[in-house]
Amino acid sequence: MKVEGRNSVFELLKTDKEIDKILVQRDLKDDASKRLINVIRSQKVKIQMVDKYVIEKESESKRSQGFIAYVSDYKYFDLEDILDDVKEKDGFVVVLNEILDPHNLGSIIRVCECAGVDGLIIGKDRSASVSDTVMRISAGALNHVKVARVVNINHAIDTLKDEGFWVYGAEVGGQRLYDANLTGKICLVIGGEDSGVKRLTKEKCDGIISIPMFGKVNSLNASVACGVAVYEVVRQRIQKGN
Amino acid sequence: MKVEGRNSVFELLKTDKEIDKILVQRDLKDDASKRLINVIRSQKVKIQMVDKYVIEKESESKRSQGFIAYVSDYKYFDLEDILDDVKEKDGFVVVLNEILDPHNLGSIIRVCECAGVDGLIIGKDRSASVSDTVMRISAGALNHVKVARVVNINHAIDTLKDEGFWVYGAEVGGQRLYDANLTGKICLVIGGEDSGVKRLTKEKCDGIISIPMFGKVNSLNASVACGVAVYEVVRQRIQKGN
Repeated sequence: MKVEGRNSVFELLKTDKEIDKILVQRDLKDDASKRLINVIRSQKVKIQMVDKYVIEKESESKRSQGFIAYVSDYKYFDLEDILDDVKEKDGFVVVLNEILDPHNLGSIIRVCECAGVDGLIIGKDRSASVSDTVMRISAGALNHVKVARVVNINHAIDTLKDEGFWVYGAEVGGQRLYDANLTGKICLVIGGEDSGVKRLTKEKCDGIISIPMFGKVNSLNASVACGVAVYEVVRQRIQKGN
Repeated sequence: MKVEGRNSVFELLKTDKEIDKILVQRDLKDDASKRLINVIRSQKVKIQMVDKYVIEKESESKRSQGFIAYVSDYKYFDLEDILDDVKEKDGFVVVLNEILDPHNLGSIIRVCECAGVDGLIIGKDRSASVSDTVMRISAGALNHVKVARVVNINHAIDTLKDEGFWVYGAEVGGQRLYDANLTGKICLVIGGEDSGVKRLTKEKCDGIISIPMFGKVNSLNASVACGVAVYEVVRQRIQKGN
């Protein structure tokens, strides 16, 4: 969805709506425009300075005043929606701890959909949110897996534990993931690209599981690591079922 | 490495060197430049039309005449280099069947390095080759895993079979990968983003293994699929060793 015009964009910035990016016409000289650019920058929203003809091409209202914001249409689920789904079965939930790259988030959503994960939980801050890029990379998977966004993932983990989930953080220095019992109600915590699973979150985990590494570089892309860990849960469930 | 100037770029195009991309200055009006642009386009090399100041910034010789080609410095290994390494052990080789996206190739190289794969084999045609993008995405892994480029991957598979490798294609519609015996000398064939493992290649495989899918979208990103399959081989090796 596009939001156009100086005032509309300014009002949009006061809401908690997900803004993918804001196109701003280059060379706007008036004070009102400069003030708005400063406000956008201060909120760390992605800003793209473009030529006038780009604005004219993208504008639907033709009253953009040089400002077009792209807002995500995604409607997040609540943690309760996910918990309701798994009342009667061994649920499988994935929690993301500060995944920042929209490509990784999209790819992780795709993994979770393929593996039959019941829900994905992301934090409100310091996390990529569901943008058009995420939707595109997820290749349609976003329509079939519930993504909940919570203020505090540690509280969400507490709630999951109260519901009988076993919580495992995927992180270096833990037990080899093949040796952990990953059957039953499982919550897998995947760490961010840079910082992995954060200390406080790690302390909430019932166990830390690690993907064995045999190389010199020894760091997998976050979505690949998520794929390997999620599918180990799948494997153990299948083999327990047999 | 940069190759600059009309003649040098023209000569470069006659070699089989890997060209990442060619920057061409916008608005070159002379016939010689136009002819060269046509030659570049006919070879399907990535071409980027840029302003003069970009050329001036990028040029090292200052005699670019508006043409700067970026050539990959990567030196491929031979299949024999990889085979020599695994003479005395249960080798683990990954063959890529038309992986086209450099991001996927880079990410797969990273997976292979982490999992201790002995070598990666890619085809000369219809395959992403090792470019700067691949190097960057591989996050340094390219320095520690051997990548061989062969004219015909089916011949390479024949050679591997002669050396005692069991060849498994990762593809839909096969045996569940957890049920296959993936220990011993293993060659895993990963299919391309669009076409999967090609028919002729599939016929060369000793078995087809599939990642179980529980969703509606049911397609994993190629590097994630590679990660899941490669780590199942790792798991079986570890558990056999125990």
